[in-house]
Amino acid sequence: MRRPYLLFLGAATDPSDAKTAFGLRDWCRDDVAGQHRLPGCAVDLGLPELDPAAAAEAGVGSMLIGVAPVGGRVEEAWIAPLVSALRCGLDLVSGLHQRLEEVPEIAEAAKETGRDLHNVRHATRSFPVGTGRKRPGKRLLTVGTDCALGKKYTALAIAAELKRRGVDADFRATGQTGLMIAGRGVAIDAVVADFIAGAAEWLSPAADPDHWDVIEGQGSLHSPAYAGVSLGLLHGSQPDALVVCHDPGREHMVDLPHVPMPGVNEAAELAVMLAKRTNPAARVVGVSVNTSGLAEGRRGPVLAALRQETKLPVVDPMVEGVAELCDALSVPHHAAAGAA
Amino acid sequence: MRRPYLLFLGAATDPSDAKTAFGLRDWCRDDVAGQHRLPGCAVDLGLPELDPAAAAEAGVGSMLIGVAPVGGRVEEAWIAPLVSALRCGLDLVSGLHQRLEEVPEIAEAAKETGRDLHNVRHATRSFPVGTGRKRPGKRLLTVGTDCALGKKYTALAIAAELKRRGVDADFRATGQTGLMIAGRGVAIDAVVADFIAGAAEWLSPAADPDHWDVIEGQGSLHSPAYAGVSLGLLHGSQPDALVVCHDPGREHMVDLPHVPMPGVNEAAELAVMLAKRTNPAARVVGVSVNTSGLAEGRRGPVLAALRQETKLPVVDPMVEGVAELCDALSVPHHAAAGAA
Repeated sequence: MRRPYLLFLGAATDPSDAKTAFGLRDWCRDDVAGQHRLPGCAVDLGLPELDPAAAAEAGVGSMLIGVAPVGGRVEEAWIAPLVSALRCGLDLVSGLHQRLEEVPEIAEAAKETGRDLHNVRHATRSFPVGTGRKRPGKRLLTVGTDCALGKKYTALAIAAELKRRGVDADFRATGQTGLMIAGRGVAIDAVVADFIAGAAEWLSPAADPDHWDVIEGQGSLHSPAYAGVSLGLLHGSQPDALVVCHDPGREHMVDLPHVPMPGVNEAAELAVMLAKRTNPAARVVGVSVNTSGLAEGRRGPVLAALRQETKLPVVDPMVEGVAELCDALSVPHHAAAGAA
Repeated sequence: MRRPYLLFLGAATDPSDAKTAFGLRDWCRDDVAGQHRLPGCAVDLGLPELDPAAAAEAGVGSMLIGVAPVGGRVEEAWIAPLVSALRCGLDLVSGLHQRLEEVPEIAEAAKETGRDLHNVRHATRSFPVGTGRKRPGKRLLTVGTDCALGKKYTALAIAAELKRRGVDADFRATGQTGLMIAGRGVAIDAVVADFIAGAAEWLSPAADPDHWDVIEGQGSLHSPAYAGVSLGLLHGSQPDALVVCHDPGREHMVDLPHVPMPGVNEAAELAVMLAKRTNPAARVVGVSVNTSGLAEGRRGPVLAALRQETKLPVVDPMVEGVAELCDALSVPHHAAAGAA
């Protein structure tokens, strides 16, 4: 895919719809040249505003769709700016379920201009069915009380911290944004349902006993929309360690005003109970809290209350980092030195 | 699809691999003309043996693949007989994940002969994501301690018994065999993972308060391969009533010798706990036991022990029928008379 990227935000008003854009900005800052927003857009990445023509002049390679609406389809209002990007000489990168070439105007413009359409959510290979057979190597999976609250960020931060400590670790991407950041992985929610667990087994293959795969979680076992994806990923990942990700500011699940959020302990207990089916040693090692939506002064008390409730390490990875979560994995602070 | 069917069994040795063929024989007997078996096949439907040439002469319209190997792909040894069926003038009907036209020899023979290839597992439409929003109407879902032990049969039998009682009821097919029998439905395990629950919601739409949808379950919440499918189907189905299907003769899950079978109570408790997320009134109304693998004389004691263990109605639908399960739904024995 041709870098750098122009991040397209459409007319997004909810930052949680723009998690792809935030992920690219936070984890691949050098590959990102600016943002392109439509009228009404209330999300701001704090990047230079560029339209496709200016971006092309500035040497941008691709416009990347940085928003992920429910259902993952191209919105009507995006078609003109996407076509315009192609006509200005940019490729398009998409993590949507719908393939870009399914939109006739986009397919036609790509053909006319000779520009490339990248649909990263669509695996180019097929997967076996899962077996539940235990594989060597250690695995950590982030699970959530809901969607879009920090499972990817937490996994990326833990993988980075483990590497910093000299641990042999890999981040394993399971969503379109993680995939764009890591350059490999499986968009697990786009796999045919029968093969969810099998794809998760494939993603995190047998490894050295001391190797850690840090696997990006998806959805929530409590989500009436996506729990099937979360369970297949949990079974296939066979996690030794689980980190529960939570947003204490939410009054209901995202996009589902009629569905209450589960509690952190409730989510932890369900995840461990179900995880034991493929790894009897599965345990929760800590809680990752997204406090970005909390009013000033509320952060400390909320984290303290969660520590009290769960008796576990509780951090906001964007504030405290994830050192405390990695400590709970019982890996040495300087594994490389120890192994040398 | 052109009927009647010739049921192709390949070289199957395990009857549970041939559940599609058994389902067609048991529920659409008039549409089935015979069986075609390859050397080594140990499964016998008790139907006339016909090769494709004899079947074509006898007026058969299609050869239907009656076996479902793990992973759902065309086996090497099937290619010649499938091509032969096309050359004899038969269409092909398949419920496999792999599309028939993906096998070059089959695609070529279909093109040359002008015969049709039907891939019933592939939905011709897309689905929305699930919402978990409660819909009017009553729903029953069969769930299993494992795959391939009677969830479809039980659902078909309950739907038939309810109709016999004058209840407004529909069987809702979620697998390839159910679909071939009912002529409609969704092969839920072939849906893109993000849309499992949404497809289940679509399959069983809002209905009259007294209407019953009897939904065919898939997989098992305890299956390390397929639990994601089972959970998405459970959430999307919002069942008021669950029937747990079990095979007491199995020592481990099918095709997974390292995975123990869950107990009936364990399966019932997990299903109810997870079902309450989208229907707080969900309850288990009975147990359906497949006793076909039990030695003579063991049937009675096994059912009695399960009754003792679960305190629920326990039947083998192929022996006792499902009247006792329908009684537990609190529908009147003569709903039509009552409603008149």
